[in-house]
Amino acid sequence: MNAAANEALTVKMVLTAWHGQNTKMDDLLKTLSDEQLAAETAPGRNTGTYLFGHFIAVNDGLFKLLGIGERMHPELDEIFLRNPDKSGFSIPSIDDLKTYWQEVNTALTEKFNQMQPADWFARHTSVSEEDFAKEPHRNRLNVIITRTVHQAYHLGQMAYLKKATT
Amino acid sequence: MNAAANEALTVKMVLTAWHGQNTKMDDLLKTLSDEQLAAETAPGRNTGTYLFGHFIAVNDGLFKLLGIGERMHPELDEIFLRNPDKSGFSIPSIDDLKTYWQEVNTALTEKFNQMQPADWFARHTSVSEEDFAKEPHRNRLNVIITRTVHQAYHLGQMAYLKKATT
Repeated sequence: MNAAANEALTVKMVLTAWHGQNTKMDDLLKTLSDEQLAAETAPGRNTGTYLFGHFIAVNDGLFKLLGIGERMHPELDEIFLRNPDKSGFSIPSIDDLKTYWQEVNTALTEKFNQMQPADWFARHTSVSEEDFAKEPHRNRLNVIITRTVHQAYHLGQMAYLKKATT
Repeated sequence: MNAAANEALTVKMVLTAWHGQNTKMDDLLKTLSDEQLAAETAPGRNTGTYLFGHFIAVNDGLFKLLGIGERMHPELDEIFLRNPDKSGFSIPSIDDLKTYWQEVNTALTEKFNQMQPADWFARHTSVSEEDFAKEPHRNRLNVIITRTVHQAYHLGQMAYLKKATT
């Protein structure tokens, strides 16, 4: 394998990991009733609905952060990013959130499919050209790595919405 | 940036993510008493001690899986990998687990530091040469990606060992 092949391979590996977390969320949603999703993941902790909305807002933020488009649901940030759970906001219905989730991920996947491996090594929009010259790891692919890890963190918590088997 | 530079950069990004999860575990350990660590992460769920031992066994498994050495604590597999929590095994003390955790991560880091970027794109030991020829993404770097995601998943659960602030 040469370096160019490895470059393409790495992009594929990272994107596969990201898609994998989205799929795990899809799978979890299929197993949970709306009531289960709306419950706290553990006593006194974030609800499933909050974490689900948080996921949508974070993925939706990728359009601007990666510089590949305009966000679809900026109204979610106030509820699911800038404020903690149980802040008193009226939140979208679970059905609406599920629709947004699919919309955002479908649109992101379309954009990702148009990108070439080298595109992923360009800077993301929250790092300046000057800083990027010094810190070339602050690229789009790294955003996907950190987002994938972030999703896994909260998916571990959302797994507790399922009934304990022990 | 050329492809060779991106190859090296990607390895750095992925290893940074992996080290980051280990550091988060270290940071969490500093904030928890032994009693807190031994508690269930949520009612009826895995204890912190079990998940911590699980982390150590998984990291220890990397020596053989990556083909870079012999494992240090194979005795942990029975307790923390092959059986669920609360299976009645006598488990090492928390102090011993903390020692194993440091030993394993220090030894892994030494091995990783000796590897060149291209080494990460070699196959791992649980894929055959024949399968690897068809599926070159089943390489050592991909193991680190999946392990990093796996750690994040359980770290999200272990975060619940800290007192809820809400």
